[in-house]
Amino acid sequence: MADASLARLLGTELPLIQAPMAGVQGSALAIAVSNAGALGSLPGAMLGADALRAEIEAIRAAVGGRPYNLNFFCHTPPVPDAAREAAWREALAPYYREHDIDPAKIAPGPGRNPFTAETADLLEPVRPPVVSFHFGLPDAALLDRVRSWGAKVLASATTVEEGLWLQARGVDAVIAQGLEAGGHRGHFLSPDLTRQPGLFALLPQLVAALDVPVIAAGGIADAQGVAAAMALGAAGVQVGTAYLLCPEATTSAIHRAALQSDAARHTALTNLFTGRPARGIVNRVMRELGPLSAAAPEFPLATSAIAPLRAKAEAAGSGDFTPLWSGQNASGCRAVPAAELTRALARGLAAAH
Amino acid sequence: MADASLARLLGTELPLIQAPMAGVQGSALAIAVSNAGALGSLPGAMLGADALRAEIEAIRAAVGGRPYNLNFFCHTPPVPDAAREAAWREALAPYYREHDIDPAKIAPGPGRNPFTAETADLLEPVRPPVVSFHFGLPDAALLDRVRSWGAKVLASATTVEEGLWLQARGVDAVIAQGLEAGGHRGHFLSPDLTRQPGLFALLPQLVAALDVPVIAAGGIADAQGVAAAMALGAAGVQVGTAYLLCPEATTSAIHRAALQSDAARHTALTNLFTGRPARGIVNRVMRELGPLSAAAPEFPLATSAIAPLRAKAEAAGSGDFTPLWSGQNASGCRAVPAAELTRALARGLAAAH
Repeated sequence: MADASLARLLGTELPLIQAPMAGVQGSALAIAVSNAGALGSLPGAMLGADALRAEIEAIRAAVGGRPYNLNFFCHTPPVPDAAREAAWREALAPYYREHDIDPAKIAPGPGRNPFTAETADLLEPVRPPVVSFHFGLPDAALLDRVRSWGAKVLASATTVEEGLWLQARGVDAVIAQGLEAGGHRGHFLSPDLTRQPGLFALLPQLVAALDVPVIAAGGIADAQGVAAAMALGAAGVQVGTAYLLCPEATTSAIHRAALQSDAARHTALTNLFTGRPARGIVNRVMRELGPLSAAAPEFPLATSAIAPLRAKAEAAGSGDFTPLWSGQNASGCRAVPAAELTRALARGLAAAH
Repeated sequence: MADASLARLLGTELPLIQAPMAGVQGSALAIAVSNAGALGSLPGAMLGADALRAEIEAIRAAVGGRPYNLNFFCHTPPVPDAAREAAWREALAPYYREHDIDPAKIAPGPGRNPFTAETADLLEPVRPPVVSFHFGLPDAALLDRVRSWGAKVLASATTVEEGLWLQARGVDAVIAQGLEAGGHRGHFLSPDLTRQPGLFALLPQLVAALDVPVIAAGGIADAQGVAAAMALGAAGVQVGTAYLLCPEATTSAIHRAALQSDAARHTALTNLFTGRPARGIVNRVMRELGPLSAAAPEFPLATSAIAPLRAKAEAAGSGDFTPLWSGQNASGCRAVPAAELTRALARGLAAAH
């Protein structure tokens, strides 16, 4: 049974992973999910070293030896481009005026951290049971360090080609990120979004092409979705959006309201918030600038220019400039404890047999 | 049982529909599928009145009273725009030169026919058991005529909003066209492609929103895909791409070769061939002009300018200018009789119970 083998690989009771979601969750959600028998995940991309260390310690103290997952981005930080940054701020200028923001006072900032040797130094004494990567993998030496600790390594593929690339580099399982998925697209071999299929097409083709277990992600919102993914040959599933209303998530009130509204029916891939395509509920800035803009600086440099607009708008109760990350299927979002949601999703694993 | 009810509605043994695919099939495929217990479909959009009448007669003579489906497009023919046509031909000019084609000799042509009062006149004596529509529905009076014959009416929805719109107008079942599907997108309420989810997200949300049965389409390539769609609440499935290698399909040798190659892993929505977004395997003209071009004339007027390029290239064995229609999952294509493929797909219906 494929799912039993994934649970054995991960050391969990269930072949079910809570998707790491930077900015909307920390250790609390990961702890609740791991303690419910699935694999809770901590997103590391927006945490500095001290915060990362503290969050990992919180998880280790609370899960009683159960496995958990630490997730990291693998981008190469770009060289800042002053002309592009200026053009981007010019595109945002009407919004700065509307919100009484002085763009000269906006500090540039990185926004999202990649996995580095310093991250590995920090993790080495921890020996995390599972580490997952997005946007490819760290370089071979760094990856070897992670594997030398005995950590199981997972990584996202948005195409069959990316799955083959990851398998050739020794990952223990591949996450099939269907186009439905919320948050950042994990692509790394090609920026061409047309190459990335929906889960109904991506998952069975990855299962056929790979020898390692394939974990289904994107649009899976409830037990029926889990059962469908297992029917398509998944070894397990990764679910993100459905957890966003759980009390253990740090999802803002504005974001929670959007997820529960009809607006959640229309998501789009946008690069306005970070510089890389990520799926969120369409809001004012995505509508007005187009969800994908050639003017946005490279990931993650686009983050800084929009941050003060987001802060001002949110202070006034508006999500007009907020990344309202969501997959294409928010219908499974429920304001219940993450353990209860995990058990409900797990019923789809049983139904698959 | 939802699927039993759809089979009862359609009058078939199986809740399984062969997707109508204009240009790559005629009556032969529809006959084979209907005689295998599923619902064969004849696409009417590219047939003149005489050809349509002959194809329907061929089906009726061969299916021994079993149900079949006649499919029609519901677009409003656009007013030709000479300036836009000239700009489009200018964009194609390098290709005309390369292929030694005199653009002055290219006749403008409609390319695809909509369902009209004349179509209804032709169908009235036939009293077709099932009629399906793409791009919305014909106007209320025409739709009433179709329903007055006792025909069951199906139509495609690419969003929840379109499903609700179709249900309010009395369709008997809604086809959930996931973004994975090959050929023309069926959208009619908004041309915004970001509104159209993958099947994993669209299907369960349509099932939850509608009272009529929902038929899953897009990316379903084999019995596992059928079982997955049923797990997500589908009342039945519609499969197109998987039939394209069957001997009963009229798929060209060039198209068949593309479907069996690694190139089939990369499809995109393109408007270059007809003026409306449709999914096909990425080829030279899609790569070089971009799969979606603002210069292409309105549907179906873009068809005529590219037709002679297609003909010349195909005569030389090249699919560089051919619409290589395919969904995102061509992995189920098999060069076996359509009845055999139908029985293989139907095993997924049994697995769902």
